[in-house]
Amino acid sequence: MTDFMTDSRHDLIASDRVEGTAVYNRQGEHLGKIDNFMVEKRSGQVRYATLSFGGFLGIGNDHYPLPWSILTYDTDKGGYVIDLDKQVLDNAPRYAADARPDYDEAFGRNVYQYYGVVYPW
Amino acid sequence: MTDFMTDSRHDLIASDRVEGTAVYNRQGEHLGKIDNFMVEKRSGQVRYATLSFGGFLGIGNDHYPLPWSILTYDTDKGGYVIDLDKQVLDNAPRYAADARPDYDEAFGRNVYQYYGVVYPW
Repeated sequence: MTDFMTDSRHDLIASDRVEGTAVYNRQGEHLGKIDNFMVEKRSGQVRYATLSFGGFLGIGNDHYPLPWSILTYDTDKGGYVIDLDKQVLDNAPRYAADARPDYDEAFGRNVYQYYGVVYPW
Repeated sequence: MTDFMTDSRHDLIASDRVEGTAVYNRQGEHLGKIDNFMVEKRSGQVRYATLSFGGFLGIGNDHYPLPWSILTYDTDKGGYVIDLDKQVLDNAPRYAADARPDYDEAFGRNVYQYYGVVYPW
């Protein structure tokens, strides 16, 4: 990921550089990686980034939707940092890779509330 | 791309389903494909989608930043449709794949102006 900065112009980041990026917490524990992220089609607003971990060779791992706003990119770590104890993920909203749910309003509010973020839509 | 709808929940679309999607104009001409898109990190706002075409096996093709808002997904075509004559791309802002420019404000205003879209930031 040494070329990360070449794809990070000013305040912008390329979509394909977000995908696959490692996620850590403030204690430096590796939580997983960003699998992909969900964009509101009409407005172009990113609503969720999906953290994935576990499973074997990416098979069977769970996906954890996170509010985009809780992710901060850390150039030293070469990944995103979120202020989150690992245990918080134990009960977090998640779904199996092959069972992506309806991202409806109830789902969205639940995700945002779980991470203590106001659901702004 | 038959599974497109399974990754398109309500008004949301997954980032990795945008990448690689074909782009047509209203005359049905194939213009290229979406290579990736650029997200404003802090706000999570998508600013540009990058159309690429030309080259050989993806090598040497030019990248054309487009305002996200001019893309409309057409389920019948299985791709994005933009209201654009092919010739308009002849003089459009572009860059070589290995020479991504600074996406600064002047660059952004130029791109948006070229496609007749107000630069809203």
